[in-house]
Amino acid sequence: MITGSGESLADLGEWGLIAALAAQLPPGPGTELGIGDDAAIVSAPSGSVVAAVDMLLEGRHFLLSWSSGYDIGVKAAARSLADIAAMGAVPTALLVALGAPGTLTAGWALDLAAGLAYEAGRAGAGVVGGDTAGADSVLLSVTALGDLSGRPPLRRAGARPGDVVAVAGPLGYSAAGHALLAAGVTSFPALVAAHLRPAPPYDAGPEAALLGATAMIDVSDGLVADLGHVADASGVWIDIDTSALATGDPLARAAGALPPPSGTGPPVSPAALALRWALAGGEDHSLVAAFPPAAALPARWRVIGTVREAVVIARGEPGADAGGAAGGPARAGRVTVDGVPYEGPGGWQHFR
Amino acid sequence: MITGSGESLADLGEWGLIAALAAQLPPGPGTELGIGDDAAIVSAPSGSVVAAVDMLLEGRHFLLSWSSGYDIGVKAAARSLADIAAMGAVPTALLVALGAPGTLTAGWALDLAAGLAYEAGRAGAGVVGGDTAGADSVLLSVTALGDLSGRPPLRRAGARPGDVVAVAGPLGYSAAGHALLAAGVTSFPALVAAHLRPAPPYDAGPEAALLGATAMIDVSDGLVADLGHVADASGVWIDIDTSALATGDPLARAAGALPPPSGTGPPVSPAALALRWALAGGEDHSLVAAFPPAAALPARWRVIGTVREAVVIARGEPGADAGGAAGGPARAGRVTVDGVPYEGPGGWQHFR
Repeated sequence: MITGSGESLADLGEWGLIAALAAQLPPGPGTELGIGDDAAIVSAPSGSVVAAVDMLLEGRHFLLSWSSGYDIGVKAAARSLADIAAMGAVPTALLVALGAPGTLTAGWALDLAAGLAYEAGRAGAGVVGGDTAGADSVLLSVTALGDLSGRPPLRRAGARPGDVVAVAGPLGYSAAGHALLAAGVTSFPALVAAHLRPAPPYDAGPEAALLGATAMIDVSDGLVADLGHVADASGVWIDIDTSALATGDPLARAAGALPPPSGTGPPVSPAALALRWALAGGEDHSLVAAFPPAAALPARWRVIGTVREAVVIARGEPGADAGGAAGGPARAGRVTVDGVPYEGPGGWQHFR
Repeated sequence: MITGSGESLADLGEWGLIAALAAQLPPGPGTELGIGDDAAIVSAPSGSVVAAVDMLLEGRHFLLSWSSGYDIGVKAAARSLADIAAMGAVPTALLVALGAPGTLTAGWALDLAAGLAYEAGRAGAGVVGGDTAGADSVLLSVTALGDLSGRPPLRRAGARPGDVVAVAGPLGYSAAGHALLAAGVTSFPALVAAHLRPAPPYDAGPEAALLGATAMIDVSDGLVADLGHVADASGVWIDIDTSALATGDPLARAAGALPPPSGTGPPVSPAALALRWALAGGEDHSLVAAFPPAAALPARWRVIGTVREAVVIARGEPGADAGGAAGGPARAGRVTVDGVPYEGPGGWQHFR
């Protein structure tokens, strides 16, 4: 179908592109009907399906000058697949909507498909369907499906006072890689790779469920922000122990290799910058979960904090949050760092 | 959460927008876990799930000056839900990825949510999840899920010589509405509505399966183009009988109300233009299926053609298609109109 990978998407046409992509995108063990009809069919042996969608937009989430098509394919797949794992489910399938300028080459699109296929394969999922359209910039929307193997889902709600909080996967690596790329520092390739091609530990999701986890989320917006969602949904406070965050090598070393910031703010020490990456950096897509204190956690689950009872603060008093029931005391979840509220930059918010 | 619908998306922030949208988007009967966690959970009683994704991009698929947020919500939902119905499945859920400029108003986004909710409700599906991001223009990617109730899927392959071809829903109405909008003709509001807010007959999908249909597709690219997919997948020829296409009122009347085209091509009669809309116009999202000749079709299934055996044309002879097996005779599917190959404009292709 493709005579040369330098051919443009416009030369190829929509159906030519779809055929070329489909040839790169293998089915998975749960694929009952893959690419080529009006819809795909994916097995859902539990009798229910877990589903999540995430967008990846050129200029907002990636730059074509930093990321290859392969990188973008890996990242787009990882973002959505991590959401499935964060429910304690096993990924089964991806559907990929791709908008792209007709001037992009077929070779770029095939690279993208190879990245999608690689990451889907790492998660055990097939790429079963999609849509393509011409667009002014590259945009991807990836839907991931998964199966719970008959277990209840691991939600954000469920963390209980006394639980320990543990993480599987790195924290702050993606933020460090982003800072290195932005500064043009070419050392620390593993951190740059962690930004360009996050590698969520998918099998840690179902593992957490088997270990008795009470709540789980993937770190997409930043550790403090994402644990804030767990704290809010569970009605608890969560304290992070920074001594457990492993912000030494390579994070602090990478922070020390960066040129001093050109802005007018106060200087930030490498150790403080590394801590900020671990607390507020997003896009690692590591899994963070609450476990009963007696849970016997395998080594890849690093305990980084504890869950405590939410302190009731009367409405209007200092420290009261806005989320309480009307007229009653506020009882919102909260995340503290070494026992005090986190004052650093928050997680990523769009539209700002 | 929203204090005034004139507030901008940037004022609202990502989480404020998600909360405001979630309040407009009801769960459906199959929603086990809706918006608010890392992923949604949707029942899949058959043990498998049908899934499809479609994009809708500002400037490519709609204009903000023509379509309200509500219109865009309806259309985005309808495109994906029709793909589920075209497999003979019952829609269960939608996941919606929305990119939008921060300057858009919260009121526009709530209108969009109302349109999504209306159309999802018409199909019996819940809106269970999504993603939002800032973008330079409005972009939507909607994933639809469905359930086959234990039946095999109705694929594009399966049409057999002797079958009749029947359609449920209008043909050419969306193309007529597009032409009226482009010409600024404000009469024929039903045709304009058919373009802005297509209304696929979702329940005709499972009905076709129960009636013994052998193949089905939804008319998204145009009747000839989409029946071409069925003909190719089934290895048959399909002949469309134009006398059955109902291109009189309102199509021919609307064609007659248009100003003459400004180009240099030959003039086209209203009847010919109406026929072109019915044959090549897309986006009606009506369902077209092949049925055994003895099938007792309810009135809404209008017979518009027949399936015949593919004629074997030796490779290299006039009329031979390119898709045949290497070295052997070509045996591609083909669509004819009143017995002759269709020479009019084809269906919509992106990247061109």
